[in-house]
Amino acid sequence: QIKTFIIEQLQDSVSKPLAGVRLTITAGPTREAIDPVRYISNHSSGKMGFALAQSAAKLGAEVTLIAGPVDLQTPTGVKRLDVESAQEMLEAALANPSDIFIGCAAVADYRVANIAEHKIKKNAQSGAPQLELIENPDILKTIAEQNPAPMCVGFAAETRDVETYAIDKLKRKKLALIIANDVSNSDIGFNSDNNAAVVLSADERVVFEQQSKTSLAHQLAHYIANHFHQNFRR
Amino acid sequence: QIKTFIIEQLQDSVSKPLAGVRLTITAGPTREAIDPVRYISNHSSGKMGFALAQSAAKLGAEVTLIAGPVDLQTPTGVKRLDVESAQEMLEAALANPSDIFIGCAAVADYRVANIAEHKIKKNAQSGAPQLELIENPDILKTIAEQNPAPMCVGFAAETRDVETYAIDKLKRKKLALIIANDVSNSDIGFNSDNNAAVVLSADERVVFEQQSKTSLAHQLAHYIANHFHQNFRR
Repeated sequence: QIKTFIIEQLQDSVSKPLAGVRLTITAGPTREAIDPVRYISNHSSGKMGFALAQSAAKLGAEVTLIAGPVDLQTPTGVKRLDVESAQEMLEAALANPSDIFIGCAAVADYRVANIAEHKIKKNAQSGAPQLELIENPDILKTIAEQNPAPMCVGFAAETRDVETYAIDKLKRKKLALIIANDVSNSDIGFNSDNNAAVVLSADERVVFEQQSKTSLAHQLAHYIANHFHQNFRR
Repeated sequence: QIKTFIIEQLQDSVSKPLAGVRLTITAGPTREAIDPVRYISNHSSGKMGFALAQSAAKLGAEVTLIAGPVDLQTPTGVKRLDVESAQEMLEAALANPSDIFIGCAAVADYRVANIAEHKIKKNAQSGAPQLELIENPDILKTIAEQNPAPMCVGFAAETRDVETYAIDKLKRKKLALIIANDVSNSDIGFNSDNNAAVVLSADERVVFEQQSKTSLAHQLAHYIANHFHQNFRR
C-alpha cells in the first residue's frame, strides 16, 4: 500500500492531471454578524477543504482557496482569500472564475436581517431580542448557474438521511458531483482529522472508507480530476 | 523601565502576594448551540483572561481557569477546565469556590430556547426559522450572591458609553472591581494582543494605558491583589 502511494505520488508529479486547470474551492465556516461582538457560525474546521486545495495543487491545478475564519496554514502553491460572511464568500467566488468549483465551506444558510451597529444590551423590560433571519445567497447554486459554468462539486454534511439529502442537493443545484458525509459521527466529523465519504453523481456512487482527511483529499482530488477529463474537458 | 520590571518580577517571586489565595477566572467566549452544527458565539479570543490567569499564578494564587472554546495554551501552574456553553461555565464556577472570582469570559447573554436535535434544513415553504432566545444565567451575579462570596471582579467590554455601562454593572452585580475597555477600537479589541483599561471600584478610578495584554495582566493582577488584601483579607 505504501508502494502504491509512492508510485501515485510520483505519477502525480509527472503527469499533473490538473495542469492548466483553474480550481476554486471554498472552505471553513462563515460568520454572520449579530452585532459588533456576536455572530452565528458553525463547527466546520476547514480541514477537509484545505486538504483538498493542497491535493488539487499537487495535481497541477491553479488553486484559489476562499476561506472562512479558520485557524489553518495556507497550503503550498495555493492562492488564499480570507472572508467572513456568506456574502463576502460569494463575491470572492464570482470574482475568481474557474474550470472546477468545489463548495466545501459550511456556508450559513441564514444571516441576521438587521446587524446592530452597537453591542445589543440586555434589557429587563423588553426581554430577549428576536433575531430576524433572512436567507443567504446559495453560493454553489449561483456558481452552477453562471454561463459558462465550471464543473461544480458540492458537499453534504448531514446528521441523518445523508445520501437522501445529498442526492436532492445534487439535482436541485445541478452539480456534477456531491461528496456526502455523516457529521453526527464524531470520529469523522467537523473537528476530526479523519473523514469518510460517499461520492454521488448522476450515474455513480463511490464509497471512500474512513481515513485521514489528507489521504481522503488525495483520493477525491484524483476522482474529481478524472470526472473533469471524462465529462467536462472540451 | 526594564529595571523596574525586573525588580517587580523578583519581588513577585519572593513575596507571592496571592500565596494561598484561591482565584477562579473565566475566559474566552461561550458557544450556544442552535443545532448539532450551528451556534451563536462572539469574538472573544480569551487572551486577556489567559494572561490574567498566568499573572495571578505567578503571584502565588491557586488558579482555576474556566475556558470557553479558545485556541490558547494553558498557562503554567494553572488548573484549566474547558466548557462550551454559559450553563456549563456557571456549573464549573459553582463547583470551584474561590477567594477571588474574575469574570473575564464574554458569556452569551442569551441561548437558544429549543436546541434542535438534528441539523435544521432550509425549507422554501416555511421561510427562515425563528430563533427563540432565552436569557442565560448571569454567572458573575450568581457568584457574587453566594455566601460566603468571593471578591468579584468583572469586565465590561463595550462599543460605546464604556464607563457608564461599567459603573452600572459594578453596582447591579455588587462587584468589588470592574475592568472596562472599549472593544470598538480594533487596536485593543478582542483579537488584538494589546489592551487598555479603566478599573473602577466604589471609590477609585484607575487608568491603565495601552500595552500588551501580558503586561496589562501583570499590572491588573497586582492591583487586584492589593485590593484583596486591603478590603477582603479577614
